[in-house]
Amino acid sequence: MKIVLIGATGDVGQAALAALSPRHDIITVGRTSGDLACDIADPVSVAAMYDHVGQVDAVVCTAGNVHFGPLAEFTHDQFMVGLKDKVMGQINLVLAGRDYVADGGSFTLTSGILDQDPIRMGAGAATANGALAGFVRGAAIEMPKGQRLNVVSPGLLDISVPRYGEWFPGHIAVPSKAVGLAYVKCVEGPQTGQVITVH
Amino acid sequence: MKIVLIGATGDVGQAALAALSPRHDIITVGRTSGDLACDIADPVSVAAMYDHVGQVDAVVCTAGNVHFGPLAEFTHDQFMVGLKDKVMGQINLVLAGRDYVADGGSFTLTSGILDQDPIRMGAGAATANGALAGFVRGAAIEMPKGQRLNVVSPGLLDISVPRYGEWFPGHIAVPSKAVGLAYVKCVEGPQTGQVITVH
Repeated sequence: MKIVLIGATGDVGQAALAALSPRHDIITVGRTSGDLACDIADPVSVAAMYDHVGQVDAVVCTAGNVHFGPLAEFTHDQFMVGLKDKVMGQINLVLAGRDYVADGGSFTLTSGILDQDPIRMGAGAATANGALAGFVRGAAIEMPKGQRLNVVSPGLLDISVPRYGEWFPGHIAVPSKAVGLAYVKCVEGPQTGQVITVH
Repeated sequence: MKIVLIGATGDVGQAALAALSPRHDIITVGRTSGDLACDIADPVSVAAMYDHVGQVDAVVCTAGNVHFGPLAEFTHDQFMVGLKDKVMGQINLVLAGRDYVADGGSFTLTSGILDQDPIRMGAGAATANGALAGFVRGAAIEMPKGQRLNVVSPGLLDISVPRYGEWFPGHIAVPSKAVGLAYVKCVEGPQTGQVITVH
């Protein structure tokens, strides 16, 4: 399949790329790196990206910013970072991508564990992750042309432990290979409207 | 207890008011009606509301707008209606309210069934509802002064059937009394970080 992967340089994106690239043709998209550049929070940038990429069989997104910080210091604008970028950025990819994805093709988004198993300073991420679960369940039933829509919710990846592990006390790191397989399941499997958890 | 109830005139708000008002002192707040006016999406308006109300034991919100429409016609800005109003409006009430709510007091927000049991045209509501579930689970663990934070997820209310029933094919309407009791549970019970479903 021809797959566009947005966010390939992050830890989750690397896991997805490692699992998908031996099986499919991957076009990588990043904010500043990859085959193409795109700011998913900007609908104009998303439209331009699809215009370059053309028809694809699947869209996989492992990108999206959220703010992390103590709830006591969290501001309205900091909550909006996650809602505008991680949530609306990924929704933008679906809204604009429906005309470019093949019949029976798929969109696979990325959320995370923090709405189910929260950590300190993670309220913004928990909000964004929950929104993406709701979006996928709500929107999958109205997708055109048999297109499928799922979200992968990875826990703390093993390869992320050196940088982020200290913020996740007691969390069991998940193998990057298992996270990569979740994207294979979403791209090649038949399911839709699902939150695929790798916790 | 002294309780501020935002959104008392809606169907869910009426159910909450009917259950809480015989047991507590209620200050009603609405966009244009009630004891006080407040636009929850505007942090300045929320701050002014709390400044008028002063110290309370509980904040209950049954307000929040979302856009309903076919996914095929949904725009970025229409998704943002729910994220800015229903999601950030209720988060604004929590962020600004922590200094006004008593030790051990509570915040009770309102989501809805559509992230769990979707309907056509409900993708915006599903996204907002999921975000609120994530927020409550993520933020409850960082609330100060023993303050609790929950969200009630009501299904289609019996009193809403004449207006909205046709959009919810096959949904079993829930008794307004049961929805009202969910708010009593959140205000008077000990739980926090919970999604209280009345489906």
